[in-house]
Amino acid sequence: MNTGPSPGKPASASRLEAVHIVMPSDANVHGNAFGGMVMQWTDLAGAMAAMRHARLPVVTASVDQLSFLAPMRVGHIAVLRARVNAVFGTSMEVEVEVVAEDPETGVRVKGCDAFLTFVALGPDGRPTRIEPLLLENDDDHRREAEARERRSARLAKRSRHP
Amino acid sequence: MNTGPSPGKPASASRLEAVHIVMPSDANVHGNAFGGMVMQWTDLAGAMAAMRHARLPVVTASVDQLSFLAPMRVGHIAVLRARVNAVFGTSMEVEVEVVAEDPETGVRVKGCDAFLTFVALGPDGRPTRIEPLLLENDDDHRREAEARERRSARLAKRSRHP
Amino acid sequence: MNTGPSPGKPASASRLEAVHIVMPSDANVHGNAFGGMVMQWTDLAGAMAAMRHARLPVVTASVDQLSFLAPMRVGHIAVLRARVNAVFGTSMEVEVEVVAEDPETGVRVKGCDAFLTFVALGPDGRPTRIEPLLLENDDDHRREAEARERRSARLAKRSRHP
Amino acid sequence: MNTGPSPGKPASASRLEAVHIVMPSDANVHGNAFGGMVMQWTDLAGAMAAMRHARLPVVTASVDQLSFLAPMRVGHIAVLRARVNAVFGTSMEVEVEVVAEDPETGVRVKGCDAFLTFVALGPDGRPTRIEPLLLENDDDHRREAEARERRSARLAKRSRHP
Amino acid sequence: MNTGPSPGKPASASRLEAVHIVMPSDANVHGNAFGGMVMQWTDLAGAMAAMRHARLPVVTASVDQLSFLAPMRVGHIAVLRARVNAVFGTSMEVEVEVVAEDPETGVRVKGCDAFLTFVALGPDGRPTRIEPLLLENDDDHRREAEARERRSARLAKRSRHP
Amino acid sequence: MNTGPSPGKPASASRLEAVHIVMPSDANVHGNAFGGMVMQWTDLAGAMAAMRHARLPVVTASVDQLSFLAPMRVGHIAVLRARVNAVFGTSMEVEVEVVAEDPETGVRVKGCDAFLTFVALGPDGRPTRIEPLLLENDDDHRREAEARERRSARLAKRSRHP
Repeated sequence: MNTGPSPGKPASASRLEAVHIVMPSDANVHGNAFGGMVMQWTDLAGAMAAMRHARLPVVTASVDQLSFLAPMRVGHIAVLRARVNAVFGTSMEVEVEVVAEDPETGVRVKGCDAFLTFVALGPDGRPTRIEPLLLENDDDHRREAEARERRSARLAKRSRHP
Repeated sequence: MNTGPSPGKPASASRLEAVHIVMPSDANVHGNAFGGMVMQWTDLAGAMAAMRHARLPVVTASVDQLSFLAPMRVGHIAVLRARVNAVFGTSMEVEVEVVAEDPETGVRVKGCDAFLTFVALGPDGRPTRIEPLLLENDDDHRREAEARERRSARLAKRSRHP
Repeated sequence: MNTGPSPGKPASASRLEAVHIVMPSDANVHGNAFGGMVMQWTDLAGAMAAMRHARLPVVTASVDQLSFLAPMRVGHIAVLRARVNAVFGTSMEVEVEVVAEDPETGVRVKGCDAFLTFVALGPDGRPTRIEPLLLENDDDHRREAEARERRSARLAKRSRHP
Repeated sequence: MNTGPSPGKPASASRLEAVHIVMPSDANVHGNAFGGMVMQWTDLAGAMAAMRHARLPVVTASVDQLSFLAPMRVGHIAVLRARVNAVFGTSMEVEVEVVAEDPETGVRVKGCDAFLTFVALGPDGRPTRIEPLLLENDDDHRREAEARERRSARLAKRSRHP
Repeated sequence: MNTGPSPGKPASASRLEAVHIVMPSDANVHGNAFGGMVMQWTDLAGAMAAMRHARLPVVTASVDQLSFLAPMRVGHIAVLRARVNAVFGTSMEVEVEVVAEDPETGVRVKGCDAFLTFVALGPDGRPTRIEPLLLENDDDHRREAEARERRSARLAKRSRHP
Repeated sequence: MNTGPSPGKPASASRLEAVHIVMPSDANVHGNAFGGMVMQWTDLAGAMAAMRHARLPVVTASVDQLSFLAPMRVGHIAVLRARVNAVFGTSMEVEVEVVAEDPETGVRVKGCDAFLTFVALGPDGRPTRIEPLLLENDDDHRREAEARERRSARLAKRSRHP
């Protein structure tokens, strides 16, 4: 697939939109999608973006931050947007944004925001190098820089609490 | 929302992409997404496009045609694309196309093609008029004409077999 | 099993009744079984009737027509009846009728009516010939004739829109 | 509904057949339907037979005996047959038999055998009297007598271990 | 694993607590966990206790008694406690108690009580001997004695109704 | 419930153990519990510990860190341990540790480690004050101090990236 002296693959190529209508079976007692269900949707959307970039099987390594900003009501549409922000050798940071859309008004409210790290696996089931990310514009550069910052903060924290 | 002498809403406004990674729990004995699961994904994607156009609750009235063209393997990504083709008073035809994407090669194969009819419901739970569809280009016109043709064929058949 | 110069197997041998109580987890916002869930039940009931006739693994080839006639409330019983209407070489048409039964009154209302096509697979995973259907009475003959008519209409449509 | 000097309702009226194809998502590590899934199917089939007899909402009071006799492989059809054996005031014994059918050979093996007790609920949510069971033949009488025997044994045991 | 002249393994080693919050998708029409779902939780909790004792794969052989004592409301916590009561060669009796906890008051009500029999499987998929149970205190002895009594009653009943 | 001049409730009172056997329906293509499923289990276990402490309905506010340390195979037991580390007015930090236990050897490997924040809701559905946490020993004090540190880091980061 990725033959020749490839300078990397653009982030836009792995961008992905997933939608779920919030069904009664996804709800908690309050009639909103329960947290764990939104996490599952987020993980799967992120994994698909990661696979699209890496062209390899991936596994979730970590959820680095996931914030719930607004509840998502039964009957509303959860729109998930996932994209690869940065590649670090055998892992990559994926950002997933979840928007709750009221289909009867079209009003959209940001419901959840998450950063996850996925690792790509080679045929031997071990982490393997991922094609670099081609940064095409200012937004791409900003996202990658912020992802590196988050990663440095995580590594620094780990070295303090080994 | 829809204030003023609206000439209708464009089909592009309700277009929708939904993705699902085919999980082992979606599979049949052959390791492919089983038919009924793809139908469920198709119905939900179609319903979301229909709600986006109508800005009203909808229910499925019929599956007018749904063809399986290629199996979707566990681990592949099912990409569903739904759009409203035509509005007929209180009902609308929605087309859903399902593509099976192998995330490791990026190769996409059309897996399923479907036409469904949804009905919009008013506050009294009865069918209610749907905003007309604004046709913006040749493709929109062709789709609407074909939808009308399919509908005529269905109505003719019903009058023959009452 | 199919020993001797069998003239085919009767439709009655593959007839099948499946029941599901509509649970809250099967419901949409309106408290009725949602369309995609009924489609899944229909597909599985049809597949079982098809396997019983063919004595072979089957896959869904198409939903040729599926109409929702009445909603099925949570707490009601969905009674599905499936039977093979006709065999066409390596495929067969299966009809599935879904009745909604209110267990507290016994009142039954037809909720859904569907025609699906299933293909039988041989050990190599490719379509394989299916034992013919033995037509035993007028109803069997009428169903088979109508199935042939529906199939001709589909093939004619496809040749017009290749 | 049950107006007039009804002598009861025959057992045959509540008889019910439910079928499930064993899917990979129903399986344990051994590729068979796992026990808890079969129990769930059994409970739901029994509840439907009980509701059909009582024409009232029911809740499961107990599983009096449930034996697994043979594993049910993924791809096989689980055929459940439920019927009311006896009515005891506000409760009734329901028998559920599960047969595993290999759709490719038609061979059927008894997979599970169960006796459950259901209680009918009135509008106030409390146990309410159930219409008596009309015994129509020797088999009906034998089943009812055995159900009474099982119930006496249970009551005797409870009085010994209060 | 269990080398040497082991005198058996204590019941306490296999004791297990499982908790489930009752979600709307677990509920029946009355807003309580439906019987079949509680049975599934009970079977899985029992199987885990059985595997922990036997250090072998297990399958459910029977539900010898399972009584529902109180409904479990959506939003409440189902606390399941499982333990091995007795070992009989290749099978073992496991007791599972389910308590419904109202998380807002802390009040706990016994919701279900069950005795199940599990069989351990060897590498050939056939029943295999299970390590004996080490009885450590009066409660252990009482439970084992009662399990033997229940088993004798079952075997006696079977010899009467072969 | 919490009458008198309560000095708070000990962390031990909300401690919770949840177990899940990893079923084929929880698995990814690699035969391990997929990330999103483990996240769902983690969220629910955390929510139950939070409700036990607060004696109030809770919603997930954020996943502050969740790391996958080892895969959990189908057939293994996922043991989740949740506890409240700290209370911050209307929110609390809950730690969830997931251990993968091989039931055939008893070997346990840490599979996942997570910190989540839950918010308690009053009768009006808005955040409400939570009873303080009574710290009983050095471990309690250490956990609470680390939770405060994590919270300060999060608040500092937010003020830098508003």
